Amino acid sequence: MGKITQVSPLAPEAFPELPVIGGVRFATAAAGVKYQDRTDVMLAELAPGTAIAGVFTRSRTRAAPVLDCQDKIGGTSDAGAAILVNSGNANAFTGKNGVLSVQAITSAVAATCDVPQSRVFTSSTGVIGEPLPHDRVTASLANLKTGLAAGRIADAAKAIMTTDTFPKGACADMDIDGTKVRIAGIAKGSGMIAPDMATMLVYIFTDAQIDQGALQELVSTGADTTFNCITVDSDTSTSDSLIVAATGASGKNVTQNADFTTAMHGVMLDLAHQVVRDGEGATKFVEVAVTGAATDADARTHAMAIANSPLIKTAIAGEDPNWGRVVMAIGKSGAAADRDRLSIRFGEVEVARDGWRSPNYSEEAAAAHMKGENIVITVDLGLGTGACTVWTCDLTHGYIAINADYRS
Amino acid sequence: MGKITQVSPLAPEAFPELPVIGGVRFATAAAGVKYQDRTDVMLAELAPGTAIAGVFTRSRTRAAPVLDCQDKIGGTSDAGAAILVNSGNANAFTGKNGVLSVQAITSAVAATCDVPQSRVFTSSTGVIGEPLPHDRVTASLANLKTGLAAGRIADAAKAIMTTDTFPKGACADMDIDGTKVRIAGIAKGSGMIAPDMATMLVYIFTDAQIDQGALQELVSTGADTTFNCITVDSDTSTSDSLIVAATGASGKNVTQNADFTTAMHGVMLDLAHQVVRDGEGATKFVEVAVTGAATDADARTHAMAIANSPLIKTAIAGEDPNWGRVVMAIGKSGAAADRDRLSIRFGEVEVARDGWRSPNYSEEAAAAHMKGENIVITVDLGLGTGACTVWTCDLTHGYIAINADYRS
Repeated sequence: MGKITQVSPLAPEAFPELPVIGGVRFATAAAGVKYQDRTDVMLAELAPGTAIAGVFTRSRTRAAPVLDCQDKIGGTSDAGAAILVNSGNANAFTGKNGVLSVQAITSAVAATCDVPQSRVFTSSTGVIGEPLPHDRVTASLANLKTGLAAGRIADAAKAIMTTDTFPKGACADMDIDGTKVRIAGIAKGSGMIAPDMATMLVYIFTDAQIDQGALQELVSTGADTTFNCITVDSDTSTSDSLIVAATGASGKNVTQNADFTTAMHGVMLDLAHQVVRDGEGATKFVEVAVTGAATDADARTHAMAIANSPLIKTAIAGEDPNWGRVVMAIGKSGAAADRDRLSIRFGEVEVARDGWRSPNYSEEAAAAHMKGENIVITVDLGLGTGACTVWTCDLTHGYIAINADYRS
Repeated sequence: MGKITQVSPLAPEAFPELPVIGGVRFATAAAGVKYQDRTDVMLAELAPGTAIAGVFTRSRTRAAPVLDCQDKIGGTSDAGAAILVNSGNANAFTGKNGVLSVQAITSAVAATCDVPQSRVFTSSTGVIGEPLPHDRVTASLANLKTGLAAGRIADAAKAIMTTDTFPKGACADMDIDGTKVRIAGIAKGSGMIAPDMATMLVYIFTDAQIDQGALQELVSTGADTTFNCITVDSDTSTSDSLIVAATGASGKNVTQNADFTTAMHGVMLDLAHQVVRDGEGATKFVEVAVTGAATDADARTHAMAIANSPLIKTAIAGEDPNWGRVVMAIGKSGAAADRDRLSIRFGEVEVARDGWRSPNYSEEAAAAHMKGENIVITVDLGLGTGACTVWTCDLTHGYIAINADYRS
């Protein structure tokens, strides 16, 4: 794992002021799972009847706690629930020991919080292939129980960090028929990638009332255009998890409510962008917008080919408006493209059109856009109405330094 | 395009002594297409009746000369033939101008060499999106014609270089029923990737007699396990071309001859490995061998996921036996895998077995293997008999320096 010496230059100025969500209490502890002198466990206690939805990594080598969460997501219950997360160890590729650790933790949390074990969700993030010392986690439960408080979500955001250089939070509130409804979420991750694959974890809480099925649908759909549209370097975690809990404390049912859907999507997108902004070695935040594709799926394939191309990401790091590499990425992606209908913009600058360099091309104007912190690459394929936007960061010496220069 | 200051540490000690192939003559010239003070055009003149086969990039934004070659490959003829290659400009994404340049060059070569235009094959490699100054190429033809000589293949290998740090050549000879048959080939490329996408070009010559259809079949099949099994960073060129010419000068027909097939495959593999050894910034040559997959296609998907993973490539650069990242790559590849049947070796060291760290694991032994120049990662999936081996290099500061630190 690389040495992290400073906060990402793309970090927000400060952690946001997150609202208190009725029906959730948080606590953190320094259990010493791996890190010393910092918190590494967080507990979220959820009110009876809380609806819980989740989206998880599609990796075929996913971690034991992910498999356990996937088994449990989907039911409805009037009982309380709990989420327990540890950092420092991913409990991934740990064989039967991994399953035993999940059992030990979830049964101890169930007893501590007086909730059914089937309503205890756990995540682990950090080094993989090492047995999780789950006794250190369970030994911290009594302290965690005592420390539970409604306002401690910012502490929770810090406890789940691994190689993150800043804690990540986002929120929204809205007035629905005179009732205030709130959403607050936290995330950890340096993109899809991070040393030892301890990557993205996201927890979002709302006091809205919503059917579990409707919540799951909203969260799954939302993930497709937010967390599933970011990439740092194309490597997918064994542990990626997004869990959304709706406590109902506001008393307002938001099933099928458009304002709530929009607000939830906004919180998810904000957290997804923060993960990219903490991408290892990142110095530029890059939006890739593809339009005019034959289908939305084709647009996504092209956008991801551009966002994952090491040649494009290094050119961005070098502030080089090397649009030829964008042509290359479209050519290799495998999705439909017609060289002679392509147009490409860097920011507002049209660089290519109709299969050749744009007649309006200004190297100076394109280079000026590349000097900024926020880079926008727009591609129109001229074939249809398919569209997709994805976000990534540049590929720099910092990435190599974090992942190669230091032994784990 | 980055500044190249030294020869790759993975380069062979010297350019090999390539045999003279009857029926081919080579010439080079300094046409000043882009580079100064070096040769940048090569002409190969082929005897009447030479059978010509080719394999080309599958990019949807492929260059004008590639499209022209693809149109021409496949026919048989008793006429002579010619191959003309320029470096410094890829004539890619150049619209109608690109087609006109190909027309101008192929018709001038046809006149100079007195061969049909349909038997003139041309490649261009270098910067893209710039019009090719084809008049500089055609102005050099008279000189090229005068300079044609059978022994000048090494000069040809140098004239086609762009960011290569060493010229690439390989050869074979064999005795078939008392007749000596020879193969000699040259290549350029810093892997699938290179600044401005001017990547891999390969020309192989043999004095064997062989039907064009049989030659094409042999070359296409051979490419699948050689050039299509290497990657530097997953970026695919607009210009990749492999052309094989069989002059028949030995008088020996090798159609369906197993020795010839083996020898040709060996030359292709040697050149493919040399391209990886000149991968940008490379300090380690990496073989990834996957066995026990459900199908060969699945094995290839897993092997390429490993070979293209930036996390694995940086770990190799850092000499870190981070096998957890191999587990991650298998998990994300999309091909069938069962976490609990996986086994992984670094060199001879078993690092993982049955879904967990191997009981025999020695961090010291694994780390010792990673210190070598040749890294071998072996994965057995425990599912079936599918297998595939691919080759790549590590991802280092050198790669970033070449692609980001200098403006093109």
